[in-house]
Amino acid sequence: MKEPVPVYLVGTGPGDPDLLTMKASRLLKQADVVVHDRLVSPAIMALARADARRISAGKASGRHELDQDEINALLLRLAREGGRVVRLKGGDPLIFGRGGEEALFLRAHGIRVEVVPGITSASGCTAELGIPLTHRGLATGVRFVTGHCREDTPLALNWASLADPDTTLVVYMGLSNAAEICARLVDHGLHPATPAAALASGTTSARQDCLGTLHDLPARILAAGLRSPVLLVIGRVVALAGGNACQLPELLGLPGFRALPAAAAMEHV
Amino acid sequence: MKEPVPVYLVGTGPGDPDLLTMKASRLLKQADVVVHDRLVSPAIMALARADARRISAGKASGRHELDQDEINALLLRLAREGGRVVRLKGGDPLIFGRGGEEALFLRAHGIRVEVVPGITSASGCTAELGIPLTHRGLATGVRFVTGHCREDTPLALNWASLADPDTTLVVYMGLSNAAEICARLVDHGLHPATPAAALASGTTSARQDCLGTLHDLPARILAAGLRSPVLLVIGRVVALAGGNACQLPELLGLPGFRALPAAAAMEHV
Repeated sequence: MKEPVPVYLVGTGPGDPDLLTMKASRLLKQADVVVHDRLVSPAIMALARADARRISAGKASGRHELDQDEINALLLRLAREGGRVVRLKGGDPLIFGRGGEEALFLRAHGIRVEVVPGITSASGCTAELGIPLTHRGLATGVRFVTGHCREDTPLALNWASLADPDTTLVVYMGLSNAAEICARLVDHGLHPATPAAALASGTTSARQDCLGTLHDLPARILAAGLRSPVLLVIGRVVALAGGNACQLPELLGLPGFRALPAAAAMEHV
Repeated sequence: MKEPVPVYLVGTGPGDPDLLTMKASRLLKQADVVVHDRLVSPAIMALARADARRISAGKASGRHELDQDEINALLLRLAREGGRVVRLKGGDPLIFGRGGEEALFLRAHGIRVEVVPGITSASGCTAELGIPLTHRGLATGVRFVTGHCREDTPLALNWASLADPDTTLVVYMGLSNAAEICARLVDHGLHPATPAAALASGTTSARQDCLGTLHDLPARILAAGLRSPVLLVIGRVVALAGGNACQLPELLGLPGFRALPAAAAMEHV
C-alpha cells in the first residue's frame, strides 16, 4: 500500500513559468496527476512529466467544464486512488480561486491538503508595468475584489467603500463589467481622471495592456479588443506605469497627487 | 566596458526559500551585489554566491540603518559601478516595500529597473494555516493596509471603511498597534467575536501564530510574546484556520457566517 501523501493545492502565479515558486515547480514535476484550471498557462503545464495524467477542470465564464461539486468529487477520488495529486490554480489558490472550498471539502473527508501560495495576478501583472500597488503619498493600501458574477446577477459591490482615492483597487475578472465598474466608481465620488488600467493575460506572450482613466478606459478596452482574463487596476499608482509619472492626474488636480519626475511619454497609451 | 544590465528589484516572499520564484532564485545566484532588507531571511541570503557583496539596508522599526534617500543613492552608485545588482525585498517589492520609490528614483537617473514580484506575506503566511483570503459566503474581497507609523504619529486609517465584515482585512507590520487596531474596528461596528489572527515570522522556523477574536487577540499576542514581523488577519475566513470550521462565529451569530463541517478542534489556539 502506498504511503498517503497530501493533495497539493498549488498556485502557479499569473502565467509566466519563471514566476512559479521553487516549491510549485518541484511538485509539478513530481506529480502523477495534475488537475488544472483554464487559467493555468500551457507553458506551465508543459513542465509536468510527459507521463503525468492531465485533467482540465477549467472554468471559462459561461462555459463550465466541471462544476465545483464535480471538481471536489474528482479530487477526492484521485486522492483516494493514491499517487501524487497536484491541483493547479492560476495565481494564488486562496485569492478568488475557490481553493478554500476544495481544501475544506478534502479535509472534511480525511484527506491531507497542503497549500502552496502563488504570485497573485494583482502583483504579477502590475510588476511588469512598474505599477506599485502601494506607494507613499499615492496609495496607503490596496484591495482586491472580483468583477465577475453569474450572468443573471447584478454586481453586488459596496461602491461607496470602493470609491476611495487613497486605496488602489484591483478588480479580478474585470472584463465583462468594466464599463459598469468605472461608471459606478465615478458616480460614488472618484474623479473621472483617476488613472485606470486593464491588463489582459499579464506575464504571458498574449499580454495586452490598456492604460487610461476611469472615464476612457471602457472605450480603450473595446478598441483594443481585450480578451479575458483581465485585471482592472484603479488608482493614482497607475500613473506610474512604465516608470514614468504621467502628468495627467497632476494637471487635473487629483487630491493628494504628488509631483514626480516626468520622464518619457507613457508607454502603451 | 561592461554591458549595462538592469537593477533587479526582487521580492523574496515571506521567508521560506522554497517560496522564492524561479526567477528570483536565478537572479540571486547570479548577483554580484545583493542589497537586502532586514526582512529577507538568512536562509535566502545563503543562496547568494559566496563571493557576492552583501549590503544590509535593513530598516528595523525605530532603528533605521539607512534612510530611504541613502538607499536610493546607494543603489544608484552600485548600478553605475556596473555588475549585477539585485535589490532584495521581503514579500513583494511593490506592496508596502517602498520598491516603487526606488524604481522611480533609479529610472529618473537613467537606470533600467526590472521588478520581480514575490509572494506577499498576506498570502504566504495564511496559506500555511489554510486561511483563504477570499471564500464564497465569508469574504468577497481582501484588503491590505499597514499598521505601522512613525512613533510620534497616530494611525491614520479609515476605520469606518475597514470595519467591513464581508472583506478580509490584512494589516502588515501589525504588532505595535494591534490593540488599537482591534479596538477601533470594534468601535466602528465589527463584532468583537470576529475571528482574528496574528502571524509572526510566517513560513520560517521562528513562526508563531495567535488565533482568537478581535476581543481577545491583543491579550493573546502579549501572552505569546510575539515579535515582529507580525501580520494581522481579520475576518470570518480566519475561522477556517487549520482546515477546520471553528464554531465560534456560528455560535455567536456573526452575520453571513455559513455553517461548515466542523472537524477536530482548532489548532494553535
